[in-house]
Formats: sequence, structure tokens, C-alpha cells
Amino acid sequence: MVDEVVLLDFLASLFGTRVRIALAEKGIKYEFKEEELLNKSALLLKMNPIHKKFPVLIHNGKPVCESLIIVQYIDEVWNDKSSLLPFDPYPRAYARFWADFIDNKVYEDSRKIWTTKGGEQELATKEFIEKLKILEGQLGDHPYFGGERFGFVDLSLISFHSWFYTHEILGNFKMEAECPKIIAWAKRCLQKEFIANTLPDPKKVYEHAMKMRRLRYGVE
Amino acid sequence: MVDEVVLLDFLASLFGTRVRIALAEKGIKYEFKEEELLNKSALLLKMNPIHKKFPVLIHNGKPVCESLIIVQYIDEVWNDKSSLLPFDPYPRAYARFWADFIDNKVYEDSRKIWTTKGGEQELATKEFIEKLKILEGQLGDHPYFGGERFGFVDLSLISFHSWFYTHEILGNFKMEAECPKIIAWAKRCLQKEFIANTLPDPKKVYEHAMKMRRLRYGVE
Repeated sequence: MVDEVVLLDFLASLFGTRVRIALAEKGIKYEFKEEELLNKSALLLKMNPIHKKFPVLIHNGKPVCESLIIVQYIDEVWNDKSSLLPFDPYPRAYARFWADFIDNKVYEDSRKIWTTKGGEQELATKEFIEKLKILEGQLGDHPYFGGERFGFVDLSLISFHSWFYTHEILGNFKMEAECPKIIAWAKRCLQKEFIANTLPDPKKVYEHAMKMRRLRYGVE
Repeated sequence: MVDEVVLLDFLASLFGTRVRIALAEKGIKYEFKEEELLNKSALLLKMNPIHKKFPVLIHNGKPVCESLIIVQYIDEVWNDKSSLLPFDPYPRAYARFWADFIDNKVYEDSRKIWTTKGGEQELATKEFIEKLKILEGQLGDHPYFGGERFGFVDLSLISFHSWFYTHEILGNFKMEAECPKIIAWAKRCLQKEFIANTLPDPKKVYEHAMKMRRLRYGVE
């Protein structure tokens, strides 16, 4: 049976980017169906009735939702290619812990940088940088969070790279000055074609963020 | 090598209960080190410097944090016993999705029922019941969320059972009337010794909740 793989997604989506990188890394062909952020398709609402969010991966007609759950699913189904999660339970738990940290701690600050202003925005910027510094401490002198290889934590974090330009402008700081190790790590990641070709253009992400900032969050 | 397993935990902890059920289900012997909620030990702060929270499982000196990550770790290390996560990728993704829903959607309402009052508490109660009804829809006529067997989603949700008494008193409703399928499912779970013997006493949980409501959340 030929696998039918469809991705419901939006190009600037930080979460969708993770799934597209995992699909590209494994060399999986798929149909990309672009969603509109403010006008979601009937198919999306049918496939993800609980959260009504993208990305949704539809594999042979069955939906998988939530980016890190999709990435683990891809890693388990297409397991003949290099795996994103390590094999042994301890490094697996370690990878899940830091991916969860990125999802539950880093993301919230990242979002507040472009959806708020004034003191709230300043605090989010400060905390965003602090959390990236914690991640720099974890990276240490390794080329990747996965050690010698690009893995699950790297994939979880690299999707923020397209947003750094937006963070810098709205948060009024320079990533290179604040988090040089993260920037060096991102440059290593970007040498990989499947990442460089997948990450959305930072200027397009900025345009999208500024539009949403006004339309959805009412911040001028 | 004999495994050295230590659990840093607090008996009323909804998250810790999950880990204790997984350990009991697998028949793993461990040392239980009880933590104090308002005076955490130096060992806890050393083992979980990022979140400073329990439960923490220390396996042969190495810490694993975050309850669902710990449960997956236990399932992967002690994999000769019945597994909590199914084998195939699709039901695994399904189990992860609903466990995530419980953690990120149900838990927040559960917490607000006993940490807030007035309109906020009423809204949380309403939403808590609505989300349990969504879970009842998923359960359907199956004995467990895992189908015929107790699994990862069952484990994620059953730890709330000890809190239902607190929810009912503070939220002013009856679980049996609102969510009869959840109550029937919980009764099935409680027929299992490893669950019945692990779940904390609902009245002790209520005492703990009332104390924390006053001391930490300042709600009278």
C-alpha cells in the first residue's frame, strides 16, 4: 500500500514547521494543504474537533494532532530512517523533558513578545532570553541537543529560528549578543538542506506576526 | 545490577499518584521519600532544578521529571511486564493525545475548582464537567480508554479520582449525576488492587486542598 500523507498547516506556524522538518528529514512525500489562520477549513475542524488547530497530519485517512505527538508518530512509523528520538529510555526521557520545556515554557514567552506591549512585553523578552540561556547550558559544547546528531530537542527548538527576527525587533534585543551559542547551533542546523529548505522566511513571519498582532490581539 | 529506584513525591499529588500506579502495576520496588509542599528538600531542588517540582523518579542516581515522561520511562525500562502504551504508532499517538488533553485542559479546571471562588470557580466547574463529558464520549462503551486493557490514558485520568470528592464539595455538583460513565469506569479501575491500594484517601486530599487553598492561594 502506498502511504497517503496530507498535512493541514500554515507556513508561518512554528508548530507546523516541526512536522515539515520531520517529514523532510525522513524523505516522506506529502500533500500540503494550506490553512487560513482566521478561516479554518471544514476538513481541519473535522480532523481536529477538540483543539481546532493545525498542524494535523492525515495518514491514510486518520488524523494525528499536536506537533510533538505528530513528530513522535512520524518517527515511529517511518523507523527505517535515522530516528529523531534516541533508542535508550534515559536519553529518550531527557529529550522529552527538554522538548516539553520548550513547548510549555519557552513558547509562552515567545508568543507574548509579539502579542503584548509595555511591561508585559519587556518581562516576556527577559524571560525568553533567560530560558534560551538555560537551553544554552544544556547544549554545552555539543554540536546538537541530541549530542552528535540532530534530534528531537533540536527539532523542537529550531522552528523558533524563523521567529527570532520578530523577537529581536519587537523585544528590542540582539539574539547574537544574548544567546551566541543558540545562534551558533542554529547555523549548524541550517547547514542541513532539509532544515534550510523548510524554515519559513523570517521577514514573512514578521509580516504575519504584525498582522496578527493587530487583528487578533488588538495591539498597535 | 539491582535497580535502585527512589521516588520524591507527596502523597496527595495527582501527578505523583500516576507514577506510583505505574510502579505498582509493574511490581517495581522503590523507596518513597515524602516531600513537603511548602518546604522542598535539597535533594528535590538538586534533582529537578528547572521546575523544582515533584514527582521525581531517581533511577540508579539519575533523575527523571514530569509525570507522563516518568510513566513513559518506566514503561520503556521495565518492558517485560504488560505495557501501558500500546505497541502500534497510531494507538500510541491517540493515547498521547488524550493524556496531553487531560494534562493541559482537564487539570487546569480541576485546579481552579479548589483554588478560586465565585464566578471563576463556577466557570472552572462547568468547564471541568464539559471536558469530562468529552472524555466520556471517547470512552464510549469500552471498559477502558485503552480499549479492553487499562493503559496510558486511564492512568493519566484515574489520579483525579481522589480529587473528585474535593471537586464535588467546592464545585457543588455530583460526579455520578454529571458523568456516570466516568464513575463506572473509575469503579472498574478501582477493582484493580494496584490502583485501589495506591490512590490517596479522598478525605485526606480534601483536607490538604483546603489547607493549600488558604495558605498558598489566600482563598477563604
